[in-house]
Amino acid sequence: MHYIGLDEFLLSALSEDIGTGDITTKCCISEEAVSNGVFRAKQDGVFCGMSVLRRVFYLVDDNIHVTPLVKDGDEVVSGQNIATISGPSRSILSGERVALNLVQHMSGIASATNKAVKSIEGTGAIIVDTRKTTPGMRVLEKYAVKTGGGNNHRFNLADGILIKDNHIVAAGGIYNAIAAVRKNAPHTLRIEIEAESLEQVRQCLEAGADIIMLDNMSIELMAEAVKMINGRALTEASGNMGERNLKKVAETGVDYISIGALTHSVVALDISLKFSE
Amino acid sequence: MHYIGLDEFLLSALSEDIGTGDITTKCCISEEAVSNGVFRAKQDGVFCGMSVLRRVFYLVDDNIHVTPLVKDGDEVVSGQNIATISGPSRSILSGERVALNLVQHMSGIASATNKAVKSIEGTGAIIVDTRKTTPGMRVLEKYAVKTGGGNNHRFNLADGILIKDNHIVAAGGIYNAIAAVRKNAPHTLRIEIEAESLEQVRQCLEAGADIIMLDNMSIELMAEAVKMINGRALTEASGNMGERNLKKVAETGVDYISIGALTHSVVALDISLKFSE
Amino acid sequence: MHYIGLDEFLLSALSEDIGTGDITTKCCISEEAVSNGVFRAKQDGVFCGMSVLRRVFYLVDDNIHVTPLVKDGDEVVSGQNIATISGPSRSILSGERVALNLVQHMSGIASATNKAVKSIEGTGAIIVDTRKTTPGMRVLEKYAVKTGGGNNHRFNLADGILIKDNHIVAAGGIYNAIAAVRKNAPHTLRIEIEAESLEQVRQCLEAGADIIMLDNMSIELMAEAVKMINGRALTEASGNMGERNLKKVAETGVDYISIGALTHSVVALDISLKFSE
Amino acid sequence: MHYIGLDEFLLSALSEDIGTGDITTKCCISEEAVSNGVFRAKQDGVFCGMSVLRRVFYLVDDNIHVTPLVKDGDEVVSGQNIATISGPSRSILSGERVALNLVQHMSGIASATNKAVKSIEGTGAIIVDTRKTTPGMRVLEKYAVKTGGGNNHRFNLADGILIKDNHIVAAGGIYNAIAAVRKNAPHTLRIEIEAESLEQVRQCLEAGADIIMLDNMSIELMAEAVKMINGRALTEASGNMGERNLKKVAETGVDYISIGALTHSVVALDISLKFSE
Amino acid sequence: MHYIGLDEFLLSALSEDIGTGDITTKCCISEEAVSNGVFRAKQDGVFCGMSVLRRVFYLVDDNIHVTPLVKDGDEVVSGQNIATISGPSRSILSGERVALNLVQHMSGIASATNKAVKSIEGTGAIIVDTRKTTPGMRVLEKYAVKTGGGNNHRFNLADGILIKDNHIVAAGGIYNAIAAVRKNAPHTLRIEIEAESLEQVRQCLEAGADIIMLDNMSIELMAEAVKMINGRALTEASGNMGERNLKKVAETGVDYISIGALTHSVVALDISLKFSE
Amino acid sequence: MHYIGLDEFLLSALSEDIGTGDITTKCCISEEAVSNGVFRAKQDGVFCGMSVLRRVFYLVDDNIHVTPLVKDGDEVVSGQNIATISGPSRSILSGERVALNLVQHMSGIASATNKAVKSIEGTGAIIVDTRKTTPGMRVLEKYAVKTGGGNNHRFNLADGILIKDNHIVAAGGIYNAIAAVRKNAPHTLRIEIEAESLEQVRQCLEAGADIIMLDNMSIELMAEAVKMINGRALTEASGNMGERNLKKVAETGVDYISIGALTHSVVALDISLKFSE
Repeated sequence: MHYIGLDEFLLSALSEDIGTGDITTKCCISEEAVSNGVFRAKQDGVFCGMSVLRRVFYLVDDNIHVTPLVKDGDEVVSGQNIATISGPSRSILSGERVALNLVQHMSGIASATNKAVKSIEGTGAIIVDTRKTTPGMRVLEKYAVKTGGGNNHRFNLADGILIKDNHIVAAGGIYNAIAAVRKNAPHTLRIEIEAESLEQVRQCLEAGADIIMLDNMSIELMAEAVKMINGRALTEASGNMGERNLKKVAETGVDYISIGALTHSVVALDISLKFSE
Repeated sequence: MHYIGLDEFLLSALSEDIGTGDITTKCCISEEAVSNGVFRAKQDGVFCGMSVLRRVFYLVDDNIHVTPLVKDGDEVVSGQNIATISGPSRSILSGERVALNLVQHMSGIASATNKAVKSIEGTGAIIVDTRKTTPGMRVLEKYAVKTGGGNNHRFNLADGILIKDNHIVAAGGIYNAIAAVRKNAPHTLRIEIEAESLEQVRQCLEAGADIIMLDNMSIELMAEAVKMINGRALTEASGNMGERNLKKVAETGVDYISIGALTHSVVALDISLKFSE
Repeated sequence: MHYIGLDEFLLSALSEDIGTGDITTKCCISEEAVSNGVFRAKQDGVFCGMSVLRRVFYLVDDNIHVTPLVKDGDEVVSGQNIATISGPSRSILSGERVALNLVQHMSGIASATNKAVKSIEGTGAIIVDTRKTTPGMRVLEKYAVKTGGGNNHRFNLADGILIKDNHIVAAGGIYNAIAAVRKNAPHTLRIEIEAESLEQVRQCLEAGADIIMLDNMSIELMAEAVKMINGRALTEASGNMGERNLKKVAETGVDYISIGALTHSVVALDISLKFSE
Repeated sequence: MHYIGLDEFLLSALSEDIGTGDITTKCCISEEAVSNGVFRAKQDGVFCGMSVLRRVFYLVDDNIHVTPLVKDGDEVVSGQNIATISGPSRSILSGERVALNLVQHMSGIASATNKAVKSIEGTGAIIVDTRKTTPGMRVLEKYAVKTGGGNNHRFNLADGILIKDNHIVAAGGIYNAIAAVRKNAPHTLRIEIEAESLEQVRQCLEAGADIIMLDNMSIELMAEAVKMINGRALTEASGNMGERNLKKVAETGVDYISIGALTHSVVALDISLKFSE
Repeated sequence: MHYIGLDEFLLSALSEDIGTGDITTKCCISEEAVSNGVFRAKQDGVFCGMSVLRRVFYLVDDNIHVTPLVKDGDEVVSGQNIATISGPSRSILSGERVALNLVQHMSGIASATNKAVKSIEGTGAIIVDTRKTTPGMRVLEKYAVKTGGGNNHRFNLADGILIKDNHIVAAGGIYNAIAAVRKNAPHTLRIEIEAESLEQVRQCLEAGADIIMLDNMSIELMAEAVKMINGRALTEASGNMGERNLKKVAETGVDYISIGALTHSVVALDISLKFSE
Repeated sequence: MHYIGLDEFLLSALSEDIGTGDITTKCCISEEAVSNGVFRAKQDGVFCGMSVLRRVFYLVDDNIHVTPLVKDGDEVVSGQNIATISGPSRSILSGERVALNLVQHMSGIASATNKAVKSIEGTGAIIVDTRKTTPGMRVLEKYAVKTGGGNNHRFNLADGILIKDNHIVAAGGIYNAIAAVRKNAPHTLRIEIEAESLEQVRQCLEAGADIIMLDNMSIELMAEAVKMINGRALTEASGNMGERNLKKVAETGVDYISIGALTHSVVALDISLKFSE
């Protein structure tokens, strides 16, 4: 992870939280005070966000030192120390909340992704994310999915083609849509399209789709679709996968399973900072 | 809600999602095509974010018209139409995901807040939020808490004083901390401080705290603390309230209950957009 | 003072002054030339802005070294050296005007504040500022007031409640206004309201105001109001205080005196930079 | 005046003042309330800033209507109405302070400039400003000087050449400095240089300066310098002109008098907004 | 083309050219003056940039009206009118240069692309662009290539995979590079790789490349490579194509020809604005 | 060259090219890999942009080291090494294209300028640029002209006066235009005006122009104009000078020759980066 773009985001997050100044800290702690503290997991999960944690404090005050005790992707248990921190007390306290909000969120995503990945181990299917991310945080959220063991689907509307139901309506059908995209899009992109029935799958294959998204299908229908496709296109299961039996989905033979809930319904992993007295 | 600051956030969210251009839409839908569609709830909950929904599409293309069918704070049921939309197909499709990501997130917060508020109805306690929000989205998230029936705690480190455990350590104790804040902070702010034991509550009262946060206390301890305080300070229950029996917390007589999970662990409310063919 | 937000302001100030390049300096001074100089007060006053002075030059060129000879809040006399500077001549000259414009302005505010504070010494009243600041410079100006010995009123419309005459009109009276604010505002904020007569003071007290601003009252009326309030609310004298006899105002017993002129009518403290030959 | 650049400045000024939201207004005034008010001068002076006043409110809410009763450059007397305003109460109150801070500052500059201009009427000399402006506000401040009847000196380091004492030191003397500038600078710029003695004036003339700044000279010395120059270069009087007898300076025959105090020590012109009940 | 992102670029271009104000125009033309003018081609070519032309003037002053006489992609001849304009004289003159700089540049690209496309008509090969664009203008430049009849290669490093010689060195060979990319990259992207010899082509095929870039090959070698590939991968000719005989390149049977010179060495199409007297 | 403003431009150029991440590099090269490489000229020309080259890589990753082998303004020959680079492979590859796009463009301008300058050596005329630059890149492009041996005309509409044909139309003639500018513009600027005939030249002289631009004149007419002006104003030849015989233009005795093509029709100088294996 590098810092172009990231710094701007982190500075605006700090500015959102600090506003015109951290009034509590400025009023009751002297400018010279220094503190030592430790970041500690309060729940089991997969940690994610060490470089973000360090960068937040670096941006607040480069006299703060953070020493990592784990690295991104490590499983942590409740009570485990994640990093130590030392430096000017005022600066640490002013950066604490933003740093925690970020790593708790990222670790929450990595933990949920990891659970999904483990649930389908051995099937050959790959868990991927979606564009159902929190506005402003997509790069960090997709990094967390990767950290948890998943892969990334396209990042935005420019770097992947996905013809969805509404596109098909507006374009006048599956054939028209795929033909137009093949003519106009960069040759560096595969063509993915959504199908909800076997008839649609058939049309997608005939029109030459590279990837077929099997959307909101029952396990049975999905299995039939995978069989019909038979390797002529990549397959991706989609549609409220957060609430489905992932093992069963994976066993249909699909190549990818995309789960919006990984990023649209994140449960933060509890992490705290405690100063030593 | 007005648009200073908001527009900048929405434009950057759109830019994050559209990148260098919506390649699918540009390639398969003609510039002249127009569509009509409907936003529909796929779950029960409290809707929040109509002005954000409208503004996103306005920023994408002011030829898009959105007609609201519900308003912020309304309870919606699965299958209920929330708004209709009409306009250039390309523009609607390019704005769809950002708009949905935002209103699903905000409605998720409003729905969870509402559930919490209802669970303590009649007790006199008030549900409030925290600074455990998603970086970049604090104003929208706190608006959603308010929409769901809760109240807002401070927005950032500048508009409220909260002396926490780490501050007390760094400031050299409760008396020092409160005295310093009273001398240095604007007189327009109340002084809030965290207490974890009855002894700490006693010191806070003696030092003249305006608000005492009862942090991570058992129901019994909290009840004792409220009795000891006896109206000499406002009281606020805090500490993993998302997993507590809120009714019991409220019945201790605390004035406020602050719940981080309202904003740090949001479950999106499912909402979709469907074009009419 | 830390640099989040500040750097952006200083860079834009430098960009305003340097434009597409410092043509005089580039044209007549070689890139290798180095200079030594001294910043010197040309008037008596209270200095303010050392970290801003240093940061401006740091942002222009981190090969410039500034050595402070005084610190913020120190009284300086005409002719006294404030700091020495050495480094690349071009860079020093390109940053000079912005640095001086800022510290002259901040020192002007600190000096005027200090004079006001001294004029009421022993009365117990506290001088505070207002929101009548120069757009873009509020944080620096309020810092200068604090440096001069005053305290800060709220920083903006979000971190303090102040119900003014126009609010009272629009809200339908003092009772309505205060009741609505108590219900809707964060509990972390005190409620301040403006009163222009004893009758209004009475209503404010009855409605439970935390702070009563005595606006544009004569000394006599103010004294009566303070007596009537009798500690049940904090009191703040306001209204063209820059032209009032502050000692007499303070002797009415008010807790705070807010003076817009401290920041809306600033007389710069003259400071110059002279290179040694 | 047009709005490129200006809007960005005004929005950031509004954002500085509104922060995360105008809590008083949102809490006690309904979203539907509308108000009518009037802007009124509380002192005599020259008004400046009508388009800024209107633009601020336009940016806050384009449902606000401002009707000007005077125009930039008009002399106003205490008690005179300057403009009327009507629209949503919340929006007017949220924009009021920024709008007033700006026009009070600009009108203060225009008024002081006008006074200076009148004091030398008939002499042929022209009052000009300097770069001693408030960071961020240079374009508005220079516009106010122009509105008050003065002319503008260069706007920044890129659009005018001014060789000052420190440049002469670093460049190795007057001849070197002027020769280097003539060789390297765009031919579209005149060459101005500072002189503090008749000997320096002589050297400047010999080296071919286009404009000679007579810096910190006594009236007598200045008169001699003007005579020596005798039209071979333009002349500009400079150096604490805010405290000098401008009439006497002008009568030495100088072409321009530059006054830093016009912008570095601004006394705001008092203007208020009053709602009608 | 829509305006998210574009407006920011155009405003910064206007700000670069207008600086602190259009001094000539403000000084010699009255605020009320209106003018009519016509944009005219001074050379033959393909026009591109009408919406940019209109948007620039809209951003300067929405009282300006531009009436297009041609549309993007139209061939124009020297002397042909392209658009008429009417509105405030000052505003038109202040926006003229930026508008012309942009459309001359975009039309230059469209014209050169069109010439290249015509030179290979009938061969089936497709002309595409590269990332050798002018910093800040990529979206506009790639739009101009498309307008001239070419197609777009990837927009940036995120939306296409291209393994180049230096990647192969750093990754430890062709097999390693392709295997790693297949494992880690989003499944929505094809894998393109550069080959400079038949042996490299063979390895790329074996490793399963989707697109093979034939880099800096002679016509003969390229023809052999295309034959060897035989449809198992898409082929792209690359390497100083701006100076090659495109017809011969196309006749080797390659699918795509990418030409950096289309955007890195642009010859502007001369267009002028003339006011009617 | 210093970095205020420049960094912002370079970061946005990097962000344009890197988008959401350099997918190829991240997928096939390990985070720990380091590389060494060399920048090499592939054509003869004048190099320009070393500090930009270094700054781009510094902004990407400050672990990258660039060692310059030439300096700005040096003539380089095809095959000559320009700089070496070493550092993390991923970072070098992610910054390569932006760095090359910039220095190729700047070197192209410096090379073309140098050729023009040499073609008129000995005549006394000076080559200058225009405002026909690439939006966003004016400061870098004008620096490249200077590096190539030319001088700079005004940078923007604020730092130079140039009354063009359309201004004359809108202002009501040459006399009016010059008189108005003399009255209203800063005295630090010379007044330049465009003339297309001897009659116009005569009027410009009579009205007191400081610089007369001889626009689109034949060599003969230009020579006559120069003779008529006879040193009473500076002279500047203009109008498609990129296609004129510059030697002949210079021999008419004009002081300056301004050439738009130097910046509006840039041919990049080919430069490559090659990793050592």
